[in-house]
Amino acid sequence: MTHVIGVDLGGTKTAAGVVAPSGEVLMSETIPTLKRAGGKAILDATAALISGLVARAADAGISVSGVGIGSAGVIDASSGSVVSATDAIQGWAGTSLVAGLSARLSLPASAVRAVNDVHAHALGEAWLGAAAGSSSSLMVAFGTGVGGSFVLNGAPVLGHRFVGGHVGHFASPYASCDGVPLPCVCGGSGHVEAIASGPAVYESYLRFGGSALEALDTRGVFALVDPEAHDGLDGEADARFGGSRAAALRAIEVGAAAAGQAVGGLINILDPETVVISGGLADAGELWWKPMEFALRQELLAPLVSVPVVRALLGNTAAIVGAAKLVLK
Amino acid sequence: MTHVIGVDLGGTKTAAGVVAPSGEVLMSETIPTLKRAGGKAILDATAALISGLVARAADAGISVSGVGIGSAGVIDASSGSVVSATDAIQGWAGTSLVAGLSARLSLPASAVRAVNDVHAHALGEAWLGAAAGSSSSLMVAFGTGVGGSFVLNGAPVLGHRFVGGHVGHFASPYASCDGVPLPCVCGGSGHVEAIASGPAVYESYLRFGGSALEALDTRGVFALVDPEAHDGLDGEADARFGGSRAAALRAIEVGAAAAGQAVGGLINILDPETVVISGGLADAGELWWKPMEFALRQELLAPLVSVPVVRALLGNTAAIVGAAKLVLK
Repeated sequence: MTHVIGVDLGGTKTAAGVVAPSGEVLMSETIPTLKRAGGKAILDATAALISGLVARAADAGISVSGVGIGSAGVIDASSGSVVSATDAIQGWAGTSLVAGLSARLSLPASAVRAVNDVHAHALGEAWLGAAAGSSSSLMVAFGTGVGGSFVLNGAPVLGHRFVGGHVGHFASPYASCDGVPLPCVCGGSGHVEAIASGPAVYESYLRFGGSALEALDTRGVFALVDPEAHDGLDGEADARFGGSRAAALRAIEVGAAAAGQAVGGLINILDPETVVISGGLADAGELWWKPMEFALRQELLAPLVSVPVVRALLGNTAAIVGAAKLVLK
Repeated sequence: MTHVIGVDLGGTKTAAGVVAPSGEVLMSETIPTLKRAGGKAILDATAALISGLVARAADAGISVSGVGIGSAGVIDASSGSVVSATDAIQGWAGTSLVAGLSARLSLPASAVRAVNDVHAHALGEAWLGAAAGSSSSLMVAFGTGVGGSFVLNGAPVLGHRFVGGHVGHFASPYASCDGVPLPCVCGGSGHVEAIASGPAVYESYLRFGGSALEALDTRGVFALVDPEAHDGLDGEADARFGGSRAAALRAIEVGAAAAGQAVGGLINILDPETVVISGGLADAGELWWKPMEFALRQELLAPLVSVPVVRALLGNTAAIVGAAKLVLK
């Protein structure tokens, strides 16, 4: 059995690994994504990254038979091209991923496959991670954005136009301020992502009166309410942070409740065997997880109350492993 | 090629038809569902209904090889039994549909299959109705309740516990009154069904100040705003109805907007090739359809703006035809 390369191409970095048929990542490398250089330059850099790994594998006596890519953007998995992408990677839309990489790597086009990175991530978790052994799983990731993928019988449900899995873009009762729906990055408003993503938690913090001096970003919001971080403060400093700390607590709780309510509704709709929660917020600890899971379980229909809701297991290798699965026999 | 029987077993009536391999319904009959008599009595009556059709088919030289059933309730499609059901059909939960009917009809159990009626309905529309020819479709029905089914490559996505398709039970920003989420029939609150079902439209009408004397039910709410129904009224009678008519208009618009917003979000999540809207409200005319489709299209992500949204075509035969498809070779 030959090995394959799995690639996770995101807005800031591109990671690739040599993946064994078992799913084990034997060696891996990461480069910054040339997000302002255009599609051709990114393909050049990605092909070089892959070639380097293929050469390292060959030195170890391992031959590589294919390349699977999970990429940011809406990816047409049949043509292997980028249908659309945000400005996070300029000039990415329209890039022929499969044709461009197979030509650069002298591989047949049939040995290269591409899907959206969130689908690759979910497929990795479904194959070897938190949903291993489940016939269906729903993964939802709460991070810079909110995205997800429903994996059914070993394949992510990509959607007819490859847009499936945009689970951050449905209405949330939490996503409004004084009755006005909050703007969403998609151009719409009132969506789950507008209240439950990482950046949205920071925006809520500011809206709730938190000071930008006391928390610079979402990570800062969580630091404000981390009990360990305040153990050393004297009474005066502690009081000074009080208002921002209350805003931080509220922003986290609202974001987590919106996240849980959204996932709970999705479970009623899709009834997956296992639910996997991923992304930076899922890793932020009990302060986010507890209100998230409470809100989630409040939504569930009676026959679904025992659905397992688990944290993603594979971290950064999930998308590499999932992308590799696309071309592993 | 032999024919089969398709059965649509609902809370008020049970309809069955002899279905040709082409999907044509050659003969059909309907009986009231014995909703207070328990599972055994319903199975007896359903078996008699089917036997009558089999005999009529035989008279016409047609042999019947199997029975497909779409039934109210959560149906375990692998065991062919009723997992759970509302009080609309008493004693239905726990009934072994496939075993009970195959024994009564002297058919092998492998010749009888059962799914939930909404899934059968969607499968019928996907096979021969409004989504014919589409590789994937989402049907959402707005009637006594709100239900749906995502049909992918010719098979409804039933869910791991056969609960999939409960698209009425996720949060809607419209489903609250003075900030308090409206109660939902599932026991939860704030769900789409609590604002967008037919009964919910009537409840909104009353909440908005409409008089129960001027509209007895959802149908009455629509009658109040039907321009033709008021052509013959003199000025005085017209003024008398004014307050209730405004409440009716608002209740319909809010219900329709909630329905459209919900379906739009589902499209972003599932990206079906075709979207089918069904149920009594979908048949109520432009007054509901226009604000529904407006709200739906406002939700859509850019790559989805041209998704076809069409009204169901097959009416009452959809579930019969879809149920038949389960056992047609």
